[in-house]
Amino acid sequence: MKKFGIIGPGAVGTAIAYALNQSGHNVALFGRSNSTVLFQEYNHSAQHEFTVHALQDAHEQVDILFIAVKTTQLDSIIPYLNNVIHSNSVIILTQNGYGQLQKINHPYKYHAVVYISGQKDKNSVTHFRDWTLKLPINNNTLNLQAVTQDSLLNIECLEDYPEHVWYKLIVNLGINTVTALTRQPAVVLKSNEVKTLCYNLLVEGKRVAEAENIHFDDDLEESIMKIYEGYPDDMGTSMYYDMMNARPLETQYIQGYIYNLSQKHQLSTPYIESTYAILSTF
Amino acid sequence: MKKFGIIGPGAVGTAIAYALNQSGHNVALFGRSNSTVLFQEYNHSAQHEFTVHALQDAHEQVDILFIAVKTTQLDSIIPYLNNVIHSNSVIILTQNGYGQLQKINHPYKYHAVVYISGQKDKNSVTHFRDWTLKLPINNNTLNLQAVTQDSLLNIECLEDYPEHVWYKLIVNLGINTVTALTRQPAVVLKSNEVKTLCYNLLVEGKRVAEAENIHFDDDLEESIMKIYEGYPDDMGTSMYYDMMNARPLETQYIQGYIYNLSQKHQLSTPYIESTYAILSTF
Repeated sequence: MKKFGIIGPGAVGTAIAYALNQSGHNVALFGRSNSTVLFQEYNHSAQHEFTVHALQDAHEQVDILFIAVKTTQLDSIIPYLNNVIHSNSVIILTQNGYGQLQKINHPYKYHAVVYISGQKDKNSVTHFRDWTLKLPINNNTLNLQAVTQDSLLNIECLEDYPEHVWYKLIVNLGINTVTALTRQPAVVLKSNEVKTLCYNLLVEGKRVAEAENIHFDDDLEESIMKIYEGYPDDMGTSMYYDMMNARPLETQYIQGYIYNLSQKHQLSTPYIESTYAILSTF
Repeated sequence: MKKFGIIGPGAVGTAIAYALNQSGHNVALFGRSNSTVLFQEYNHSAQHEFTVHALQDAHEQVDILFIAVKTTQLDSIIPYLNNVIHSNSVIILTQNGYGQLQKINHPYKYHAVVYISGQKDKNSVTHFRDWTLKLPINNNTLNLQAVTQDSLLNIECLEDYPEHVWYKLIVNLGINTVTALTRQPAVVLKSNEVKTLCYNLLVEGKRVAEAENIHFDDDLEESIMKIYEGYPDDMGTSMYYDMMNARPLETQYIQGYIYNLSQKHQLSTPYIESTYAILSTF
């Protein structure tokens, strides 16, 4: 039986722990220190408690490791990865953004495009919706899909994985940027100037994707704007909440990743450039 | 003997009151309510007290009126202007930005480009440097220059007044925008991305000026960047302090004025557009 490990007892990590635990898997959850975390489904009262083990003191090698800390915390956990993996372990990074895999020195590592939404408040996680991790298709990810097929987790192994990476990057580029910079939730799109800025960010993000040989339908920007328009006025984004709580921003692996590729391809992307310049100071 | 009035007992208004009072002029200072304000020169201990009269209750008509409230407060004082002017009064607006004169329904009105720097803390104004007001040249401004020639005030009546308006607009466009949006004083120019953004704002600002038939030397942007580089790291801008203190921003008459002209001339100014979109939400 495969042993699973998860570093990061936040909304995503705890949800994955719950999903695997529910279907009878052997799961260990690691965090900064020994503690507990509570999990519940939105609109359900049942709470499930999970033990969190201090990663620094761990010596339990897992076959499949999910890294679910925020991008801004990745550097601080990397020195302890060898506490919990062996040479054939498979690592699944479940973070926002892209480009972080290169920081991990291990042969079997994959960055999931995460569609699991939830929220953590103190030591209590509420899961709102979705259980999907989108991964590149290969023997390791197909094996993960097979062993988790009875769980709530929906592992997708995709030929067109890069398109999915870029789709989520572009979605985040628009709404995360404008909500973080204006310090307002989705209601800020009611400003015509901000809506236009958001749209122009999508146009430029798509142009960078195209330089990377990722092609989208002509109406990509319109379809993403439609999605944004469906957001409740008071809906924040992860980067909005980070800004409001004066936490470090994940700029480097969302806007920064796209900005650096734009520079590499010598594209003109002034909307990305100006908003990235401001965000990168926080 | 001419009667002078000043609305707005802030750093600029109180300094003008002091300058006129020193040279023996008849000066009345108006504010929201009856109060007093103290004036002193930087590095001097002598304090000068001025009485502030409530504008709402005023019935003292002056020959020359300086309006020295912030742009965001202009609308609230306009209904009371007739308390303090007569049909031949000359109005001098000493505010940041440009475009506000049209709000004032009076024939003799001029917008000064202000170079008077100071700071107000509670009811105490400290004057740092400069006493210059740059105005268009005409009989009224030449008359003002003549009657104030013995005072500290330096009234300049200029043929190339529009160039001076635009020069200050462009200077403010760069540094005010980046310090307000990043919520950092001048030290933020040490970020290469922010420095580049600031430079690009100047380039676009100059392009808008050119569409308005205002022509600058080729090295305008470089020379303004040099000025910025001379700023102390901890130096804020008026818009930076407004942002940090959650006060209304003067965006509409600085960035907004330039942005609207860019739109009118159908120019492509994405750096102005994106930063204006964000600033205009505050």
